[in-house]
Order: sequence, then C-alpha cells, then structure tokens
Amino acid sequence: MYLMRVGAPGAEKPVVRVDDDRYVDVSDLVTDFDEAFFGGGGLRLLAGPVAERIAAGETEPFGGRRIGAPIARPHQILCIGLNYRDHAAETGQAVPDEPILFTKSPNTLVGPDDDIRIPRGSTKTDWEVELGIVIGSRTSYLDSVEDAAAAIAGYVLVNDVSERAFQIERGGQWSKGKSAETFNPAGPWLATPDEVPDVLGLDMWLDVNGVRRQTGNTRTMVFDPYFIVHYLSQFMVLEPGDLINTGTPPGVGMGHNPQIWLQPGDVVELGIDGLGSGRQRVVGPR
Amino acid sequence: MYLMRVGAPGAEKPVVRVDDDRYVDVSDLVTDFDEAFFGGGGLRLLAGPVAERIAAGETEPFGGRRIGAPIARPHQILCIGLNYRDHAAETGQAVPDEPILFTKSPNTLVGPDDDIRIPRGSTKTDWEVELGIVIGSRTSYLDSVEDAAAAIAGYVLVNDVSERAFQIERGGQWSKGKSAETFNPAGPWLATPDEVPDVLGLDMWLDVNGVRRQTGNTRTMVFDPYFIVHYLSQFMVLEPGDLINTGTPPGVGMGHNPQIWLQPGDVVELGIDGLGSGRQRVVGPR
Repeated sequence: MYLMRVGAPGAEKPVVRVDDDRYVDVSDLVTDFDEAFFGGGGLRLLAGPVAERIAAGETEPFGGRRIGAPIARPHQILCIGLNYRDHAAETGQAVPDEPILFTKSPNTLVGPDDDIRIPRGSTKTDWEVELGIVIGSRTSYLDSVEDAAAAIAGYVLVNDVSERAFQIERGGQWSKGKSAETFNPAGPWLATPDEVPDVLGLDMWLDVNGVRRQTGNTRTMVFDPYFIVHYLSQFMVLEPGDLINTGTPPGVGMGHNPQIWLQPGDVVELGIDGLGSGRQRVVGPR
Repeated sequence: MYLMRVGAPGAEKPVVRVDDDRYVDVSDLVTDFDEAFFGGGGLRLLAGPVAERIAAGETEPFGGRRIGAPIARPHQILCIGLNYRDHAAETGQAVPDEPILFTKSPNTLVGPDDDIRIPRGSTKTDWEVELGIVIGSRTSYLDSVEDAAAAIAGYVLVNDVSERAFQIERGGQWSKGKSAETFNPAGPWLATPDEVPDVLGLDMWLDVNGVRRQTGNTRTMVFDPYFIVHYLSQFMVLEPGDLINTGTPPGVGMGHNPQIWLQPGDVVELGIDGLGSGRQRVVGPR
C-alpha cells in the first residue's frame, strides 16, 4: 500500500495511491496518517476498505493537486549521520563505530515538490537524498535486530536539507543546521514494507539543475534500517509515525571540490527506487 | 498565573494553582496546556474566568493527587548546553561563544514527582536542575533580544536527566544520552512571566539523598532566556508549547571527584525560586 496526503499545506487529506494518475480517498476512514493512525493499527484496518473501493472503481484523479508529506508532523525526526562509507570519506570523517544520532525539528516536514527556503544568514545550504523509515508502533528495547521489521510502517524518500555553517561552525551539535523551515521535503508516498521487497538494494539519486550530483544504493549503508531501529530503541521510546532519516550517499555539496551550495532559483530533483521522486525549487530567505 | 496538570499519567487535567493546597479546575474551558492552547492565546482567555472562580470560591483541594508535567508533550524539547560558566569549567570544557543546542525526545516529559528510570545498559545516569522556558507563540526570526519576552509563555523547573556514557562515549552527538523515558521531569507548575519578576536572579538547588549537590543562580547564565529565544528563532521555527531547557549550574555527578552516578533507590529533590520543587525516586531499568 502507498499512503499519500494531498491538498493545501496544513489541510492535506489522507489518500491511498492506486497508480501515477489515481488515488482512493480515505479521509472518511482516518483523520490523518499520524501517531494515532499508525499506533492504532490503521494500516491493517485500511487494507480491506481500500481494496473494495478500487474494485468498485471508487478512485479519483490526482489532477495536479499539491502533494504533501505522506505523514503528519511526527513526534520526532531522528537522523543518522555518516551512514554511507563513501559519504563519510567525502566529508573527511571516519566511518562511525555505531550510529551517530541527531535530530531535526519536526516542523521542517514539507511535501516532495514544495520549495526549499534558504534560511536567513545562510551561506552553505546543502542537499542529502535519503531513505526515511516511518515507525509503525510504540517501540522500546527491541530484543533483536530481527524484531525491528515489525516496528516499521514503511519507507519514504526524503531530502535532509542541511545548512553546513550552522551545522558545523556554530557550536558543535548538528541540529542547529538541520532544523530550518522547509528543510525536510518528504514523499511523494510512504510505501509499506511489502511494496519494497529489497530495501537493502535501492538505487537513489539527486540532481541539481539537471546535473547528477548524488548516486548511491542502500546496499552501501554502514547500518541498515533494521539495525538502526533496534539500536535507537535501546536509547529512547520511538513513537508511531516517527521519521528516521537514515543518512546520505556521496555527492553532497560539501563533498565537492570546490564546494557547491544551493542558491535561489536552483532546482533539486531526487528519487529512490520504488519510493517515487520529488522536485524542489530553492527560494531565498523570508 | 500558575498552570498545572493533575491526574494519572496520560489523563492529566489542566488546572490553575491558587496556593499550595487548592486549584481551579479549567478542564471545561481548555482541552490541555498544549500547542493549540498557547498558540490560540489561551493564557489571556483564561485569566478572567479563573479570577471569577477564585472570587466565587470555586476551588478544589489537591488532596494528594498526582501532579503531571505542567504542559502537554511539546513539539520539541530544546536544550542549551554548558550555559553556566562554573558548569562548563567542571566538565573541562570552554564557555561557548554562542549557545550549544541539542534536543531531547519530547516523550521524556514526566511529572515533578515521578520516578526517574535508569535506562538499560546505563552506567552514568546524572542529574541537572534547570530553568525551563515554555514558548507562547509561533516564533521565527525575532528582530531583537527585546522581542523575545513576548514569545515566552512562562517558566518551569526541570531536571534534564542525562546518561553521560550515552551522551559522550557513543557517537559524538548528545541527544542519545538525553532521550530515555522519564528523563525530563518538569513542574510542578508553569509560572507566567508576571509571576517571575526577576528571572535573571533565581536561586536553584538540587539534593541527592538529602545531600546538596547543585547550588546556582540564574544570574550566572552565559546566555539569558531572552538571548536564547531570540537566538534559536534564527535557526528554526519555535512552536507554541515548545520547552527549552536552559542549562545547568555546577554540581552534576559528572563534575564530582570521584564522579557520582544515580542508583536505584536514590532520591533527587530540586527546586528553583518561585517555580516550586520536585522529588524523584530513581528506579532500575525495565
């Protein structure tokens, strides 16, 4: 199943994608794809009614409607740093012994085709295509890595937009450079795990102004999604609907020589196998 | 005005404190002290009805009811590190040039007298008495430090419980050691700014098993609450109800020689002038 949210910012309605052109409206069945939905077993409850509606032809065309992030604002956006060997190398840092955790402000979440707004005072706004994990149930102290699969509601394409000067040169902890508004485009859809049979073999890419900048595959992750969920559950309670950005492959702006930073007017396009693609225009500060 | 929440965990009702013994129930007027309440001007709307109820004698006794955190689970718990000169010195680190930001998982929030649960695998669970700021309105790019006062809904006593091995020895970013369940006791009340005329001159203290471990005063903060709110608003959008822990004075367990860590059975008591006190029993891992 593919969850999506369509409509104006802040007024998105939950739908289930049928194909590139059509969706099933489920806004009469669920309030939103939020903590209550995932924690209440909403994914299981939705499958039957959605199949019936598709069989009955009760679908609607996207028709150019805005696509929002496929989940409501989560309790947390957790991020794993330096989780691709080649990306660690390009930033001049060692591959970590265990996952590096940092966070983004949850209100950074926007749709896959929304604008990226450069923050005031920014000199180094950068891109990061990433595989996002959405948590499906309240999760704490998983006994094993094998238990993690059952805690995952699905996967989503994200851009972990980063301001490198804020992140690295302004006081040591990374969250400061990760939390500006619009800094977490996500979607177009959440794909449930059954739709992503090989999550450890997904190609991913990112272009800026039509030039390929990032190329990667989830098989080169240092810590895979199951390891990450098990690991984080030892340190905190993960809530249903929480989003985990799992790190970026090589090719960020910081890793180029000379370095490249996003400018107003730039266009970022990105995608991951089976998780769709996004297109974000870069705009200047408010 | 002093906001409190009383009742069982997850079922607290919003009340306004009259004195040590009595409160006004406002659960018929507001759903909770949450983002919608603060963002919707709830503090202003509540003042009249509360005064009327007190005048009419419509108050109720606390009568031993459990006290919850005085605010609902916030969108974010932001924390400022090394914000007291003497505390920076005791940890062997320099006074920062600008605020160090890290985050705690919002679901760490518990009441002022709830248990602190030591996480599994912990060897270095530590205490931190702190002044907490609660944000009163959606806040971004404040023009000046002077504008910050209007963005503050009130102040609250917090214990920024920390696992030092998770924080420092497990991958470089601090959030990992700050986010275990029960790691943010808060309350007993939120005091609105008019009740805290000298927020830059508040005594604060923390005892472990009756032995005074922390003694401080907000006048020795490196960055004061107004500076912090103005500063953070340059990097992210602060939401109504967000909690900012503003750093701890000297005397944490890590700063002692030899170092002292919390153990099951320990009792932590802490307080700040005008913000009440809390008493937390330490229990072992689940």
